[in-house]
Amino acid sequence: MDDVLKENERIDQLYSNDIKIIQNPEVFSFSLDAVLLADFARLPKKSASKTVDLCAGNGAVGLFMSHKTNGHIYEIELQDKLADMAKRSVSLNNLDDKLTVINDDLDNTFDYVEKDSVDVITCNPPYFPDLEDSKKNPNPYLAIARHEITTNLDKILTVCEGLLKTNAKAFFVYRPDRMLELFDAMQSHNVMPKRIQYIYPREGKESNMILVEGIKAGKNGGTKVLPPIFVYKDNSNEYTDFVRKILYGE
Amino acid sequence: MDDVLKENERIDQLYSNDIKIIQNPEVFSFSLDAVLLADFARLPKKSASKTVDLCAGNGAVGLFMSHKTNGHIYEIELQDKLADMAKRSVSLNNLDDKLTVINDDLDNTFDYVEKDSVDVITCNPPYFPDLEDSKKNPNPYLAIARHEITTNLDKILTVCEGLLKTNAKAFFVYRPDRMLELFDAMQSHNVMPKRIQYIYPREGKESNMILVEGIKAGKNGGTKVLPPIFVYKDNSNEYTDFVRKILYGE
Repeated sequence: MDDVLKENERIDQLYSNDIKIIQNPEVFSFSLDAVLLADFARLPKKSASKTVDLCAGNGAVGLFMSHKTNGHIYEIELQDKLADMAKRSVSLNNLDDKLTVINDDLDNTFDYVEKDSVDVITCNPPYFPDLEDSKKNPNPYLAIARHEITTNLDKILTVCEGLLKTNAKAFFVYRPDRMLELFDAMQSHNVMPKRIQYIYPREGKESNMILVEGIKAGKNGGTKVLPPIFVYKDNSNEYTDFVRKILYGE
Repeated sequence: MDDVLKENERIDQLYSNDIKIIQNPEVFSFSLDAVLLADFARLPKKSASKTVDLCAGNGAVGLFMSHKTNGHIYEIELQDKLADMAKRSVSLNNLDDKLTVINDDLDNTFDYVEKDSVDVITCNPPYFPDLEDSKKNPNPYLAIARHEITTNLDKILTVCEGLLKTNAKAFFVYRPDRMLELFDAMQSHNVMPKRIQYIYPREGKESNMILVEGIKAGKNGGTKVLPPIFVYKDNSNEYTDFVRKILYGE
């Protein structure tokens, strides 16, 4: 196994669906965001379907939801090191026929995937604005993954609007503190927020994550706010049954 | 006591703060929305402060939050019958020095309360659009209270923008299915949503109510989503401790 790993890399496993994933804590590791997004996304079973994961990082979201569809999944990641890890993880799981990792800028997406042809998009966008005074991570890999340095919500939604078929769906994981900006970007690109779910670390705490499903050319109104998800059981560091199930399948 | 009541009216009580309120189920009764909004709103203590409740109905919200401030509260209600009930409830609670019921259209608010002079606004707007095909209540009192027949979010936010001082706050209770319209109306009238809290009937159910605090001329971003509120304990018709406390004070 060691020959697939480069310096500082290790293999982690998502037990619930038996996916192995190459991680490098110095470059990028997936977190609960990716697991929750992959669980939240609803993919068509049919083999002719196309799913695209934007800002794919080390490929976690695409790998974690690969069992949900018989169709093809494209993962688009700008950073060479991350895309390279994603490619090796795809091979490690024998999923080369199902997942294609594209190592390029989001702006070039249409060179690889035809416009108006996609059934589902998933995206875990950078959460933090690219402000001079924002405390960027000094690690350039993490900085790009977390800050709007190379992309931003408007660019991402421009790609979503272009890729999605009418009535096709986009799924996002984001932070509540910028949720209005996400809603605005979605609405101005004709991707109407329809199902929203808030994640709370535990009971009695403020939400620290939001899952959003949008529909291209969806009608205004009819927004559903799904039951809240708690990560930890109250006053413990034990995962709730919901989170245990998506992490460990039990 | 009976001489203060008209046909079909009764007196209900909010035990948590010992407020009596005249109700007429055929015309309008307050519901949990009003209690939650009054609890959510943060009022300045100071006696020089001004609070305005828009779409006041039978005056429930203003009465329920009257103990939170030493300042004056204005309640604006278009419908004669409801405003009349509100006035009699104010007297019944000996609060005539503190609450003023204004029986007029929202559009005339500035004839009574000076622009840029208000510290807090509360509002429980009509929830349903005034569409020809929407199933309006055949009772005209209830229809006006629930449908956007005489007012709508844009009118309400125009009044909010006009009344509020810079950095003053507006508190709304609304329905999640139209929350994006509320956010849009707030943002386009310079009242930035800042604190949001979702109400769920019980664990595992979709949210059916949303509380929103906006700040006039507030900055973009930094939205907080407060811990979820559940109304009933799971699988029972028993109120949760949180709701019991705001209803009964215990």
